[in-house]
Amino acid sequence: MNRNELYQTPPMGWNSYDYYDTTVNEEQVKANADYMAKNLKEFGWEYVVVDIEWYAYDAGTQRDKYQYIPFWKVEIDEYSRLLPCVDRFPSSADGRGFKPLADYIHELGLKFGIHIMRGIPRIAAHNHMKLLDSDKTANEIANPSSICDWNPDMYGVNVDMEEAQGYYNSIFELYAEWGVDFIKCDDICRYDQPSARREIEMLHHAIEHCGRPMVLSLSPGPALIKEAWHYEKYANMWRITDDFWDHWPLLKNMFERCELWQKHVAEGSYPDCDMLPMGYLGKGFGEERYTNFTKEEQITMMTLWCIFRSPLMLGAELTKLDDWTLNTLTNKEVLHLLAHSYGAKQVMRDEEQAIWFSKDTKEEVYYLALFNLSDDIRNISIDAKELEINSFKGKQLKEFWSKEIEKGLTDIFETEVSVHGAKLFKIC
Amino acid sequence: MNRNELYQTPPMGWNSYDYYDTTVNEEQVKANADYMAKNLKEFGWEYVVVDIEWYAYDAGTQRDKYQYIPFWKVEIDEYSRLLPCVDRFPSSADGRGFKPLADYIHELGLKFGIHIMRGIPRIAAHNHMKLLDSDKTANEIANPSSICDWNPDMYGVNVDMEEAQGYYNSIFELYAEWGVDFIKCDDICRYDQPSARREIEMLHHAIEHCGRPMVLSLSPGPALIKEAWHYEKYANMWRITDDFWDHWPLLKNMFERCELWQKHVAEGSYPDCDMLPMGYLGKGFGEERYTNFTKEEQITMMTLWCIFRSPLMLGAELTKLDDWTLNTLTNKEVLHLLAHSYGAKQVMRDEEQAIWFSKDTKEEVYYLALFNLSDDIRNISIDAKELEINSFKGKQLKEFWSKEIEKGLTDIFETEVSVHGAKLFKIC
Amino acid sequence: MNRNELYQTPPMGWNSYDYYDTTVNEEQVKANADYMAKNLKEFGWEYVVVDIEWYAYDAGTQRDKYQYIPFWKVEIDEYSRLLPCVDRFPSSADGRGFKPLADYIHELGLKFGIHIMRGIPRIAAHNHMKLLDSDKTANEIANPSSICDWNPDMYGVNVDMEEAQGYYNSIFELYAEWGVDFIKCDDICRYDQPSARREIEMLHHAIEHCGRPMVLSLSPGPALIKEAWHYEKYANMWRITDDFWDHWPLLKNMFERCELWQKHVAEGSYPDCDMLPMGYLGKGFGEERYTNFTKEEQITMMTLWCIFRSPLMLGAELTKLDDWTLNTLTNKEVLHLLAHSYGAKQVMRDEEQAIWFSKDTKEEVYYLALFNLSDDIRNISIDAKELEINSFKGKQLKEFWSKEIEKGLTDIFETEVSVHGAKLFKIC
Amino acid sequence: MNRNELYQTPPMGWNSYDYYDTTVNEEQVKANADYMAKNLKEFGWEYVVVDIEWYAYDAGTQRDKYQYIPFWKVEIDEYSRLLPCVDRFPSSADGRGFKPLADYIHELGLKFGIHIMRGIPRIAAHNHMKLLDSDKTANEIANPSSICDWNPDMYGVNVDMEEAQGYYNSIFELYAEWGVDFIKCDDICRYDQPSARREIEMLHHAIEHCGRPMVLSLSPGPALIKEAWHYEKYANMWRITDDFWDHWPLLKNMFERCELWQKHVAEGSYPDCDMLPMGYLGKGFGEERYTNFTKEEQITMMTLWCIFRSPLMLGAELTKLDDWTLNTLTNKEVLHLLAHSYGAKQVMRDEEQAIWFSKDTKEEVYYLALFNLSDDIRNISIDAKELEINSFKGKQLKEFWSKEIEKGLTDIFETEVSVHGAKLFKIC
Repeated sequence: MNRNELYQTPPMGWNSYDYYDTTVNEEQVKANADYMAKNLKEFGWEYVVVDIEWYAYDAGTQRDKYQYIPFWKVEIDEYSRLLPCVDRFPSSADGRGFKPLADYIHELGLKFGIHIMRGIPRIAAHNHMKLLDSDKTANEIANPSSICDWNPDMYGVNVDMEEAQGYYNSIFELYAEWGVDFIKCDDICRYDQPSARREIEMLHHAIEHCGRPMVLSLSPGPALIKEAWHYEKYANMWRITDDFWDHWPLLKNMFERCELWQKHVAEGSYPDCDMLPMGYLGKGFGEERYTNFTKEEQITMMTLWCIFRSPLMLGAELTKLDDWTLNTLTNKEVLHLLAHSYGAKQVMRDEEQAIWFSKDTKEEVYYLALFNLSDDIRNISIDAKELEINSFKGKQLKEFWSKEIEKGLTDIFETEVSVHGAKLFKIC
Repeated sequence: MNRNELYQTPPMGWNSYDYYDTTVNEEQVKANADYMAKNLKEFGWEYVVVDIEWYAYDAGTQRDKYQYIPFWKVEIDEYSRLLPCVDRFPSSADGRGFKPLADYIHELGLKFGIHIMRGIPRIAAHNHMKLLDSDKTANEIANPSSICDWNPDMYGVNVDMEEAQGYYNSIFELYAEWGVDFIKCDDICRYDQPSARREIEMLHHAIEHCGRPMVLSLSPGPALIKEAWHYEKYANMWRITDDFWDHWPLLKNMFERCELWQKHVAEGSYPDCDMLPMGYLGKGFGEERYTNFTKEEQITMMTLWCIFRSPLMLGAELTKLDDWTLNTLTNKEVLHLLAHSYGAKQVMRDEEQAIWFSKDTKEEVYYLALFNLSDDIRNISIDAKELEINSFKGKQLKEFWSKEIEKGLTDIFETEVSVHGAKLFKIC
Repeated sequence: MNRNELYQTPPMGWNSYDYYDTTVNEEQVKANADYMAKNLKEFGWEYVVVDIEWYAYDAGTQRDKYQYIPFWKVEIDEYSRLLPCVDRFPSSADGRGFKPLADYIHELGLKFGIHIMRGIPRIAAHNHMKLLDSDKTANEIANPSSICDWNPDMYGVNVDMEEAQGYYNSIFELYAEWGVDFIKCDDICRYDQPSARREIEMLHHAIEHCGRPMVLSLSPGPALIKEAWHYEKYANMWRITDDFWDHWPLLKNMFERCELWQKHVAEGSYPDCDMLPMGYLGKGFGEERYTNFTKEEQITMMTLWCIFRSPLMLGAELTKLDDWTLNTLTNKEVLHLLAHSYGAKQVMRDEEQAIWFSKDTKEEVYYLALFNLSDDIRNISIDAKELEINSFKGKQLKEFWSKEIEKGLTDIFETEVSVHGAKLFKIC
Repeated sequence: MNRNELYQTPPMGWNSYDYYDTTVNEEQVKANADYMAKNLKEFGWEYVVVDIEWYAYDAGTQRDKYQYIPFWKVEIDEYSRLLPCVDRFPSSADGRGFKPLADYIHELGLKFGIHIMRGIPRIAAHNHMKLLDSDKTANEIANPSSICDWNPDMYGVNVDMEEAQGYYNSIFELYAEWGVDFIKCDDICRYDQPSARREIEMLHHAIEHCGRPMVLSLSPGPALIKEAWHYEKYANMWRITDDFWDHWPLLKNMFERCELWQKHVAEGSYPDCDMLPMGYLGKGFGEERYTNFTKEEQITMMTLWCIFRSPLMLGAELTKLDDWTLNTLTNKEVLHLLAHSYGAKQVMRDEEQAIWFSKDTKEEVYYLALFNLSDDIRNISIDAKELEINSFKGKQLKEFWSKEIEKGLTDIFETEVSVHGAKLFKIC
């Protein structure tokens, strides 16, 4: 079955990174999954993703010096494949890996995802560890010059060796056995090297080889626009910025990124605006906080992500979600766009404001998003001719966040938008 | 009326540059227009475009030293607006400009286009010439630091002055009076400067202001992919490469360009693969020749341009067209794709071959183009699953150049393609 | 006679730019020359240099919009050679050029210099003006693509044409007739183009051809270190930074530049730290002010320029010099280094301090400069071994600004230096 | 004692790399040392340097795949310090290291050098090995992101940790015990990173700390001209090109490098033109050959290296030296320049020829080198005025390679130079 047909709408879920950094454990993952099943699942949220260094012992214990402790103990099987750290994921003991946790999540009606780093563990190369079904050993497929700038765990592989594909196949076979539905592969997206291209292809082939459908998500950004065709062919989502956090300049900058990538949104292949830093964040980083975004900024973020059709991944600790945030994440009309905003395009953008427009994939209705990027309350006006509808006369405009309805009276529509805020209209 | 709705299919026409360089005259333009009206018009060919330096005296007479003679006499009116060189365009005498020539072409049922350089003539600035309906003079709006790398005629304008927009308005008013339908603006497309953005917008506003619809075509390439949204908003076509000539490596390279721009083809806004260097070329450059492209390469070029939906502009001297070339340019089935290839995308590309696929905008038929980029005859095979059709079984494949029809038998289709050649199939 | 032997010590003088910008006139130049002859000459100050656009009419009258009014009237002779603007330099009337002013300055026992821009006036090219002793005209030697980024007056020349050398010869013949002793050529120093190399060589040949010795000074900076050999061969001084002004970060940065260029100081060829922005500055820029440098910073500047052996060019309006500044500029012991600091080298530099050391060219004495680059008073210590003298024991250290004398007692010498200040010792 | 005073003339010696690559063994080193002692020592040749990977087992055995076998066995002591591979250096067994070999070489009246890579062995970091006199372990000082592009053995150190300096101290203590006189440190010279600066300083401090004088030689090139002051302060020699081999374009290019660095030659600090690829070369690379350089090219190389005062390191297998090569390497008059060419400077250089000139440090004689860089026999002429001597009249010119003597007759001297050849004159 075609890869893209599996993912006709952008993936929605939760990711452990923004709150836990490297420290998340099994109990915490389950608690978030429980919350999702109970409160979010019915709105389309379904992926539960364990982010970076689930294989690492003592993760987060030297946070003053390192985000990732170099040269440290990792859980690894005899075939150079990383396994969950048993200290944090006790159900993984005795070689069970993530299967018990994945089973738990599947029973909740949800899907399970993990983060991996491109390549093979450095320690496997230095110790000449075995590879599954191969006469070669890890040192023979590891490329000693291919490292990640910011994480010390892996070597890239020698992309011309079939045993390197074999290694990727061997880890995806394991993930398939566990029941993994989503792979976020890191250190693979923003580099301008032929070998990065090749390792993306190897991941794709390993997923096909294992037989279990898995979303392939590439990090970190910013992805390279000149590689767009390649991402679209081999991956399902790819990050269009570096790590996104609760800081207004980063959100404002996302409009520039979405301008760049707007033509590249398609079924099964999604430019990714990164996780939503809402609710409580940062505990694993040593600075637990409630999001720095104002409510208006969160409305702006949700509006942009949904009309653009970015994947939606929650960064918040779900068990601490407040009512306002939960409501914001479960606005059915807004989330409808995530699946059904078609041909979304930026109509205009300057330093003060941005306007986006799209059609519904099924109905004869249009969507219009008005964003105030300035630091003052602002009237934003738009001429219907710019939108390829002739006039607003006789049209109804329903705003999805406030539920207010306005009648179009002339060719021009104008409305007040709050500081850093947004309005999202259905026009019919 | 919306700009893009005017140009629902890529413009098709003839341009004087490839054969005449800067030297074309009125008689020659008319002869080419006559030929087009008689032999090509019924197939959709309609624009007749006079390329660079129609205002320059003695153009081409110092070709050993200069392509563009610097600091030389140009025809210019009292308001700093360039007019056709009367030596070469005698009907333009007495301030009639290109109106008589445009009338002639319109009477043939064709459309008329001209090339311009961004900015205002240097000589107007140095002589403090007047501007239409303005108290300012040319020196006040000319930017002495904004020049073209390769042509000495113009200064860019001071983009923050409204009189600069006024100057652009004044020249487009003149072009509208003449009856110009197509503007190819040069020295504006490949630069990564805010002022280039601004001058593109000024051209757009000047077209809107003059009230006559005109195709806005931007040169030279390669256009910048990060400016795609801006080109799409303000122009109708923009060059995706530097000047394209009859040299195989340039044609092979176009596949890389089309990969990059494939998502950006839309009604009224077309990435432009540049003129078709077929037939007789190069006389004005001092090296008249029959195209260096083999027939196979020309088939490859036409197939790529049409499935991708590039504008088609003929570089050949039309009065010297041979039968083979004329037939190639008037293959109705192939040209049908130019208007009706929808969602065209590259399926694969490597050093040896490329495959493209699209749907028809109206019928339930598909198009498949197989390109042999290698230097050997090659069997190219394709799995239907890669094309989002399930199988070739029971399907009919009609090749548009040979008119041969094959029956699909399995999930895979394989066929032999000649060196540097292409096959273009309709699948139904 | 060898070029470099003429200038065995770095040139010292005054330049009109820092105070007058483009506006200086004959009376003002004379007033500054008079002051120099009376108060500064005996200390070695001798050049009086008229900086940019002495040929331009209305210079400075549109300062809100332009530093250099584009496309404006200039004084020019029939052979495309710029002459002084008669409005500002009345003695130049009737084709006398700068000869009367140069004579005046020479009679004071001083030397006369002018600023020129690389190339030929744009207006000469556009008007096809004549060239001295040539059948060619200005348009034939002007390069329409070679312009200055920041000044609109000139086109560079076609460096492969002997008539271009002829044009440079013709202007230097004129300058020789006038009695010019110093040429500051602008728009020629920081560019990484083969043609910049060639125009420097043309200037050199034109000086040789005219027969009158002239210092050749190149601007603007920063000069390119990889071109050092070329500057040394063809010029006498070249700017190692962009324009230098009375702003501490620029002065602090000069230490980095001097580190880079320290090995390239030699008789007749001097890396140039640019003019000394002391006293009153900025009138022509519309912001007349007393220098923003503190006294300590000025001591630092003079100490660095002198031990490094930069040319010394005063930016101040001399007629307004206060006693402190005049004393600082006429410290004979400090100025002695300008001529006699040999093998000066940076001993150390970090963000807080810098140390320089040199020998005297004639006596067995050493110079030691200690600079406090930090924002606090600071004890600076230095081990004699770092200086290639074995110990300070028994040595006398005389500080040249305070005239205080200290006795060295150990291998280490330590002294307190004020914020942004310097001490300069003679060790004997 | 001052570092630079130890090395008043450029080091001369032999290096194992060009012939043996990574494979050299004790017997081979001794044979070359024996030859040097017998045939070369009296002419100043004295260093015997064991190049890269003397610590590696099986070095060179996988030459089809790797120059440096990654993740392979190395000889290492308990404190993370590499030791010689006992297989190749049997006298190093039982922890004796290079002491027996160094003793052997010292007894011949020669000096002993080794190559090292910047940093600490990767295997030490992964195995948490101990550090001498420290509570920290190797993993704590290794920087997992600091690797060499082309060699897989080491990690750079965390330059802000004093234990990192401690590690460098510990290895240099060992080298001092062994009797090492020369350290060629690799992967440290051409990078534009603050940490590279810091590791150079650490090497310098480690040499000072160990108390034994050692030449500090930095590789690979090209060194950065903007770092010249830093190299001069902390090192004795640094490579000004990437690896130099017996290929004319590389030799021709060296003239450009020497132009750039000519002002930076000083006692104890030498820009390094790299090893002399003469005689038999390349065995360890699998392509043993007699040098590709013609005799004329070798004369050119020796002349340039000597007048410029580059260190001289022989790449040849000494035991196979032929008479011509031996004679070329032992021309006393030419080698005299290596020590006594003062103020050497390029007089001119273009694509066809180059001229260098210098004075003797002690006598009132001058040196003049004429190089024919073209592919034809060429008369090269030089005007005495360009050389700061007034005339050749009455002067004697002795050519050092041919021993021929000419009398100067006029201001100009002209002589024929063979293709790619050189002449080197003493003028007195």
